[in-house]
Amino acid sequence: MDIGTVIGLCVAVIAVVIGIAFGGNPLALVDPASIMIVLVGTVGATTVCFPLAKVLKLHTVALKAFFFKQTDVVEIILDLVKYAELARREGILSLENLVDEMKDPFIVRGIKMAVDGTDPELIKQVMETELESLMDRHAQGKQIFDSISKYAPAFGMIGTLLGLIFMLGSMSDPSSIGPSMAVALITTLYGAMIANLFAGPIGEKLLARDVEEVQIKTIIIAGVMAIQSGDNPRVVQSKLATYLAPAERDRVLEAA
Amino acid sequence: MDIGTVIGLCVAVIAVVIGIAFGGNPLALVDPASIMIVLVGTVGATTVCFPLAKVLKLHTVALKAFFFKQTDVVEIILDLVKYAELARREGILSLENLVDEMKDPFIVRGIKMAVDGTDPELIKQVMETELESLMDRHAQGKQIFDSISKYAPAFGMIGTLLGLIFMLGSMSDPSSIGPSMAVALITTLYGAMIANLFAGPIGEKLLARDVEEVQIKTIIIAGVMAIQSGDNPRVVQSKLATYLAPAERDRVLEAA
Amino acid sequence: MDIGTVIGLCVAVIAVVIGIAFGGNPLALVDPASIMIVLVGTVGATTVCFPLAKVLKLHTVALKAFFFKQTDVVEIILDLVKYAELARREGILSLENLVDEMKDPFIVRGIKMAVDGTDPELIKQVMETELESLMDRHAQGKQIFDSISKYAPAFGMIGTLLGLIFMLGSMSDPSSIGPSMAVALITTLYGAMIANLFAGPIGEKLLARDVEEVQIKTIIIAGVMAIQSGDNPRVVQSKLATYLAPAERDRVLEAA
Amino acid sequence: MDIGTVIGLCVAVIAVVIGIAFGGNPLALVDPASIMIVLVGTVGATTVCFPLAKVLKLHTVALKAFFFKQTDVVEIILDLVKYAELARREGILSLENLVDEMKDPFIVRGIKMAVDGTDPELIKQVMETELESLMDRHAQGKQIFDSISKYAPAFGMIGTLLGLIFMLGSMSDPSSIGPSMAVALITTLYGAMIANLFAGPIGEKLLARDVEEVQIKTIIIAGVMAIQSGDNPRVVQSKLATYLAPAERDRVLEAA
Amino acid sequence: MDIGTVIGLCVAVIAVVIGIAFGGNPLALVDPASIMIVLVGTVGATTVCFPLAKVLKLHTVALKAFFFKQTDVVEIILDLVKYAELARREGILSLENLVDEMKDPFIVRGIKMAVDGTDPELIKQVMETELESLMDRHAQGKQIFDSISKYAPAFGMIGTLLGLIFMLGSMSDPSSIGPSMAVALITTLYGAMIANLFAGPIGEKLLARDVEEVQIKTIIIAGVMAIQSGDNPRVVQSKLATYLAPAERDRVLEAA
Repeated sequence: MDIGTVIGLCVAVIAVVIGIAFGGNPLALVDPASIMIVLVGTVGATTVCFPLAKVLKLHTVALKAFFFKQTDVVEIILDLVKYAELARREGILSLENLVDEMKDPFIVRGIKMAVDGTDPELIKQVMETELESLMDRHAQGKQIFDSISKYAPAFGMIGTLLGLIFMLGSMSDPSSIGPSMAVALITTLYGAMIANLFAGPIGEKLLARDVEEVQIKTIIIAGVMAIQSGDNPRVVQSKLATYLAPAERDRVLEAA
Repeated sequence: MDIGTVIGLCVAVIAVVIGIAFGGNPLALVDPASIMIVLVGTVGATTVCFPLAKVLKLHTVALKAFFFKQTDVVEIILDLVKYAELARREGILSLENLVDEMKDPFIVRGIKMAVDGTDPELIKQVMETELESLMDRHAQGKQIFDSISKYAPAFGMIGTLLGLIFMLGSMSDPSSIGPSMAVALITTLYGAMIANLFAGPIGEKLLARDVEEVQIKTIIIAGVMAIQSGDNPRVVQSKLATYLAPAERDRVLEAA
Repeated sequence: MDIGTVIGLCVAVIAVVIGIAFGGNPLALVDPASIMIVLVGTVGATTVCFPLAKVLKLHTVALKAFFFKQTDVVEIILDLVKYAELARREGILSLENLVDEMKDPFIVRGIKMAVDGTDPELIKQVMETELESLMDRHAQGKQIFDSISKYAPAFGMIGTLLGLIFMLGSMSDPSSIGPSMAVALITTLYGAMIANLFAGPIGEKLLARDVEEVQIKTIIIAGVMAIQSGDNPRVVQSKLATYLAPAERDRVLEAA
Repeated sequence: MDIGTVIGLCVAVIAVVIGIAFGGNPLALVDPASIMIVLVGTVGATTVCFPLAKVLKLHTVALKAFFFKQTDVVEIILDLVKYAELARREGILSLENLVDEMKDPFIVRGIKMAVDGTDPELIKQVMETELESLMDRHAQGKQIFDSISKYAPAFGMIGTLLGLIFMLGSMSDPSSIGPSMAVALITTLYGAMIANLFAGPIGEKLLARDVEEVQIKTIIIAGVMAIQSGDNPRVVQSKLATYLAPAERDRVLEAA
Repeated sequence: MDIGTVIGLCVAVIAVVIGIAFGGNPLALVDPASIMIVLVGTVGATTVCFPLAKVLKLHTVALKAFFFKQTDVVEIILDLVKYAELARREGILSLENLVDEMKDPFIVRGIKMAVDGTDPELIKQVMETELESLMDRHAQGKQIFDSISKYAPAFGMIGTLLGLIFMLGSMSDPSSIGPSMAVALITTLYGAMIANLFAGPIGEKLLARDVEEVQIKTIIIAGVMAIQSGDNPRVVQSKLATYLAPAERDRVLEAA
C-alpha cells in the first residue's frame, strides 16, 4: 500500500470538507445535472482520446498509485553483487540454481540470457527494449490522467456557460440571480476538484513510480551486463552504487 | 470501426444535452451569427495555417479516428516468427511465395528487399525513412485538430467581446442587459464545445493511433532485420516480445 | 499564390464582419486611441524583441505566406532519378550540361559539387549546413509572428486596464459606465483579432511552408548523395519515394 | 548562508506587508477556514504526487535554497591544476597523500580511482553516472516545489468557488455580499502568495544551484580525466578555463 | 548602440502614453503602495530565484540589449578566408603576425592554438566548450528576464486581490466602490506593463543576440578547423558561406 497516496488524498479531501463545513450547507453543492455534465462529459472526452482497451483498464493503472510494493533498491544491488561474486567464484552457470529465489522477473530474464551464453550486445538490446516499452506504457497511463485533468475543468466551464446563458436569458426575478449563478458555478467547482484533488496528483504519482521503476531497471541492466562480463564484485558494487543518493550509497558500500 | 471514439463522443454529447435539458430552453442556445463567427472563423484561421491540400483532406484524417482496423500486434509478431522459421529452414528466397498472403504492405516491402538481397543497412534506412515520413504526416493531421482546438475558443472570445461591446455601448434598457449578455456568451460556449467535445479528443485519438502504428512498424523493422540476418526464430520471438505489455508478451511466448 | 492563405483569411474576416453586422453599428468598434495602444505598442515590443534588420524585412517573410510557388516534390524526385540514370549511363560529368535546366538552385549546387569531384562527406556537410541555416532563418521569421501573437493581446489587456481604471476612478454618472466599459473592451478585441486573425495563422503557414521546404531539401540531399555514389536509378527511386505519402509515392513508382 | 534567498524573500514579504498596511486592517486577511483549504489541500495533493519519503525530506531540500556553501569554481580548477602538476612531476600515485586535504568528495572519489589505476573509460562512466543521478535527485526536489506552485492557486480557486457558491446561494441581505465575497477571495490570495512568494522562487533557486553544481562536477570530471591521462598542467588549465565566464577565466589564467 | 531596442521601446512607451493621454488624468495611475507591491515584490522574488551575484550583474546583461556592437558576419568570413589563403601560401605559422590585428578574441584564441600545433581534436573541443559555456551564461541572463515577466503580473494580481478584499470587506459607501476598484486594478496594470513593455521584449532581444553570437562563433570554429587542416581557401569560402542567408552568401561569394 502506498501510504503517501492514501494519506495525501485524505488530507486534501478533509481540507476541502472542512472548508465546506465552515462555509454553509453541503447540500448546496450537490446538483445532479452538474455532476452529469462534468463527470460524464469528461469520461466521454477521455474515451475518445485513447484506445478503448486502455481506458477500460484505467482502474488497474490507477490502483498502482495506491497499491505499489516498494522495491528496496539497496537490496536489489546487494543481490546483484552476490550474484556477481558467485559468477566469478563458480562460473556464470552456477547462477542457474539461484533463478528461483530471485525476486524481480526482470533480473531473472537477464540472468537467464547470460547463463544461456547469449551475446552481451543482444542481452543489452533486449533488456533496453523492454525498459523502453515499459516507459511507453507508463507514459500512456499518465496521459489518460492528464487528459482527465484537462477535460474536467473544460466541461466545468461548458456547464457554467450553459447555466449563465440560461440564467441571463430569462432574468425575470432579480432575487433568483444569486441562486442560479451559484448553481452555474457548481460545474466549475466540480471540474477544479476532479482535476486537482484526483486526476492531477494521481497522474503525478504514477509518473514518480515510473521514475523509480526506470531507475531500478537501469541498475539491473548495468548489473546483469557487469555479471555477464565477469566484473570484479567490488567494481560492480561501486558502479551500481553511483546510481543512488548518498545515504543509500553508503548503505550499499558498508554492506560490502 | 473504433467503438471508443463513437461511444465516447456519444457519451460526451449526451452529457451536455442532458445538462441543457435540465437548464432551460435549448433554443436559447441557437444563434446564427454566433455560429457564423465561431465556426466559419475557425475554419478560416485553420485554412490559413496549413497547406490547402491538407485542410481539404482533413475529413479523411478525421475518419481515421472513427474507422480504424485494429491490427493485432501479437498476430504480426507470430507471422514474423513464422517467416523467420521458413527463412532459416528453406532459405530467405522461399519467403517470396508468401508475399501474397502477407497482410501488412510494410512487411511486404521489407521482405521483398530482403529477398532481393538488398544491403541490410539500406533495408533498415529505407524502412526507417518511411516510418519517419509516416510520423511526420500523422503529426500534421494532429496539428490541424490542435489548431481548431486553439482557434475555436479564440473566435468564441472575439464573438463575446463583440457582443459585450455592442451591448454596453447602447445600454438604454437595463432589463435587456441579461438577454444581450446571454447571447454574447453563446460564442464562448460554442468555442469551448468545438474544442473540448470534438477537435481536442479526436486529435488525441489520432495521436494514440499514431503511437500504436509506430510501435507496430518498429516491431516489423526489427523483425525484418532479424529475418534478413538469419536469426534463430526463438531469438526473434523473444526479441520482438520485449516490445509488448506483459499480457501480450505471454501470448507471444506461449504461442511458441 | 497560396490560395489557402487568401481564402482562409477572407473566410475568417468575413465571419467576423458578418458577426459585427448582426451585432450593431460597426463604428462603435473604431477607436483611434485603442488602435494606437494595441497596434503601435505591439509593433514597438516586437521591434525590441528582434534585430531591427529582421523586423524591417518582415513583410518579405509575410509575403511568403501569400505568394509561394508550390514545388511538386514528385517532379523533383523524377528529375533526380533522371539525373541518376544519366550519371550511371554516361558518367557523372555528363550532368554538367543539365545544370542550366535544373529548377532548384539547391540541386544545382549539390550536382556541381558532385561533378567537381568534391569529397562526398563534404558535399553532405555543406548541403546539411545550408539546410540547417535555412531552418534557423525560417524559425526566426515564425518567431516574429509568435511575438506579435503574444504582445497584441498583452497590449489589448493593458489598454482595457487603463480604460477600466479611468472609468472606475471618475464614476460620476452611472449611465456612462456602459459606454466607457465598451470602449475599454475594444483594445482587448483588437488584440484578440490581431493575434487570431492574422499573426497566429500566418506564423503557422510559414511553419508549414518550412516543413515542406525542409522535406524537399532533405530529399534533394539524399538524391544528390545517391547520384554521387553511382546508385542504381531504381534504388534511388525507391529510396526517395519512401519520404512521400502513399498517394505521391505511387505516382513516383509508377513513373518508373 | 545564501544571502540572496534571505534578502530576496525579506524584500518580497516586506513589499506585500507594506502593501497590506497601506490597504487596511491586516486581520481582514486572516481566515482559518481559508488557510485550511489552501495550505492543507496543497500539502495533501503534493503528498499524493510524490513518494512519501521524498515529501517528508522536503525541508532538507528547501534548506538548500537558504544554506548553501558557495564553492569557488576558480579555486577548484587551480586545485585540479596543482594535482595535474604533481601527477606529472612525481607520478599519479603521489596524489594519494593529498586525498585527505581535498575539499570536494567528488574529486576524492575520482582521484582515488585514478590512483588505483582504474580504466579511464570506467572512471568517466562512474563519475558521469553519479552526476546524472545527482541531477535526477535535484530535478525531483524542484518538481515538488513546482507541484506546490501549481496546487496552491488551484486550491485557492476551489476555496473561492466554494465561497461564491455559498454566498450566491443564500443571498438574503445585499449588504452582506461585499464581506462574503472578500472572504471568498482570500483563498485565491493565499494560493497566489504561496506560489509566488515561496514555492516558485525557492524552486527556481534550487534549479540555479543545480546548474552551478553540475558545472562544477563537469569541470571536475574533465579535470580528473586530464590528470589521469597525464596532460600537461598548462593544457589542463586552459581546457578547464573554457568552462568559465571571461572574468573568472582570467583569474584562472593569471594564476598560472 | 542597438537602435532597434531604443526605437522599439520608445514606440511602445509612446503608444501607452498617448493611450493614457486620451483616457484621462495620468496621476490617476500613480499609486505608491502599488508600485511598492509590484516592483519591490518582483525584485524580491527574482532575487530569490537566482544566485545573488547574477542578479546584481543584471544591469550589465540588460545593457547588452541596448549597446551591442553589431558584428558583420560577412567580414568575419572574409577575414577567415584571408587567413586560410595566407596559411596555405606561407604556412600556418605566418598567421602569428596577424594575431594583433584580428578583431574577435575568439578567432585569436583559435588561431593561436592552431599556430601552437595543438591537436585539432583538442582545438575543437576547447572552442566548443567555450561556446557552450557562453550559451549557458546567456541562457541565465534570459532566464532572469523571464522570471521578471512571470513575477511582475503575479505580484500585480496579489496587489489587486488585496485591494479587492479590503474594498469588499468594508463596503459602507457604494460611491467609493469605483475609485477603490480603480486603485486595486493599478497593480495589475503595473504588472502587465513591466512584463510586456520591458522584461519580455528585452529578454527576447538578448536571446536574438545569443543566436547571432552563436552563429558567428560556430562559423569561426568551422573556419579555424578548416585553416588548421590546410583546406583550399575556395573550399573554406563556400563552406562558411553555407551558414548565411542568400543575400549575405552572395556578398561572401562575390568577394572571392
